[in-house]
Amino acid sequence: MKSMNPEGNGSETTETAVCLVSGGLDSCVTAAIAAQSYRLAFLHVNYGQRTERRELQAFEDIASFYGVEKKLVADIGYLKSIGGSALTDTAIDVPKEGISQGRIPVTYVPFRNTHIIAIAVSWAEVIGASRIFIGATEVDGSGYPDCRNSYFQAYNRLIEEGTRPETEITIETPIIDMGKREVVLKGIELGAPLHLTWSCYEREDAACGMCESCLLRLKGFREAGLDDPLPYL
Amino acid sequence: MKSMNPEGNGSETTETAVCLVSGGLDSCVTAAIAAQSYRLAFLHVNYGQRTERRELQAFEDIASFYGVEKKLVADIGYLKSIGGSALTDTAIDVPKEGISQGRIPVTYVPFRNTHIIAIAVSWAEVIGASRIFIGATEVDGSGYPDCRNSYFQAYNRLIEEGTRPETEITIETPIIDMGKREVVLKGIELGAPLHLTWSCYEREDAACGMCESCLLRLKGFREAGLDDPLPYL
Repeated sequence: MKSMNPEGNGSETTETAVCLVSGGLDSCVTAAIAAQSYRLAFLHVNYGQRTERRELQAFEDIASFYGVEKKLVADIGYLKSIGGSALTDTAIDVPKEGISQGRIPVTYVPFRNTHIIAIAVSWAEVIGASRIFIGATEVDGSGYPDCRNSYFQAYNRLIEEGTRPETEITIETPIIDMGKREVVLKGIELGAPLHLTWSCYEREDAACGMCESCLLRLKGFREAGLDDPLPYL
Repeated sequence: MKSMNPEGNGSETTETAVCLVSGGLDSCVTAAIAAQSYRLAFLHVNYGQRTERRELQAFEDIASFYGVEKKLVADIGYLKSIGGSALTDTAIDVPKEGISQGRIPVTYVPFRNTHIIAIAVSWAEVIGASRIFIGATEVDGSGYPDCRNSYFQAYNRLIEEGTRPETEITIETPIIDMGKREVVLKGIELGAPLHLTWSCYEREDAACGMCESCLLRLKGFREAGLDDPLPYL
């Protein structure tokens, strides 16, 4: 297992990292971190979420910004037929005006990250990428069970067991211990295109400013003493 | 974690098990085993494999045989765009006349079972199922890394970490230590509808009898001293 090269600038390495880019703030900053040391391959997953079209646009915009050539957009629309989440089931409302504390919110899509990372691993094995970058955050996160450090440790073990013996792929979670304020500041420091991201769970034209994802994002910018470049209602 | 009830006959329990039913011999016998103790929910996954249509028909036939009401057919066609396997990439030939020994064959679809089980876990969490049955075999199997006992142990750990704390879902692999002969005999013992299954990797009208999957199946019937009820070329 090679360690990341802190001197790297993306043009000196031939190692490839698959970045999961939802199009939100966290994934954009994570891609900016990966770009320091790896050639980038961008993966986006549609899963029948409410703001699917807008998130895909953010993905394409961020990919253009970084000049990413290897891109994969995968559709796991079956998650919508499984249901069980406010993000994929229009019969369940997206909660407003509150960040959930100590419980798993109804926006939790059961086991979603396992699907998304599985796609990344299959793709990485075929294109010969050695790292998978995901912008999960445990601090200031939404309390989803599949965003915790212990979950990713278990997943790295599964990758070891479930791929070819010569395959060496590990999941990297560079912002997992950062609060939203640190994420914003890291993005600014690395020149990440935060103006191209989209975080709102509810709307595609202007951010609602009231869903959990908007509230966490706004908290990050406020605590960093910066203005969010996105339009709000 | 409750243990399986050896006295159960499927009508006395309200516990549900999600069975992964590809439509092949192994998954059919696994469903027959699950039917002894659980109410069945059947999951089938299309992934752009060559014999997709025929396998789906086998799935529907086996579901009808067991009177299964809860069925889910999920499409992970993105595996075809990822490629890397003879099963999903028509540029790679399905090997003939040989069972691979000690190496991973080109029919290996990178990390495929992780995708399929992730769908089962998400669905199980939403419908309240406590078990996932998969007909993986390590003995007389194809040497795929994601069919080994150690892989499923790692996956059970991932499920613990990645689902709601109150969720208790475990993967069951009842035939993992059986040779193909034992699988055939177990199917006969339980009255499994082996005549409704499909195993061939290559053809949909009559089995080719030459691909690895046909060879393993034929070996099982031959060693059990029985005739395979399927039509062969």
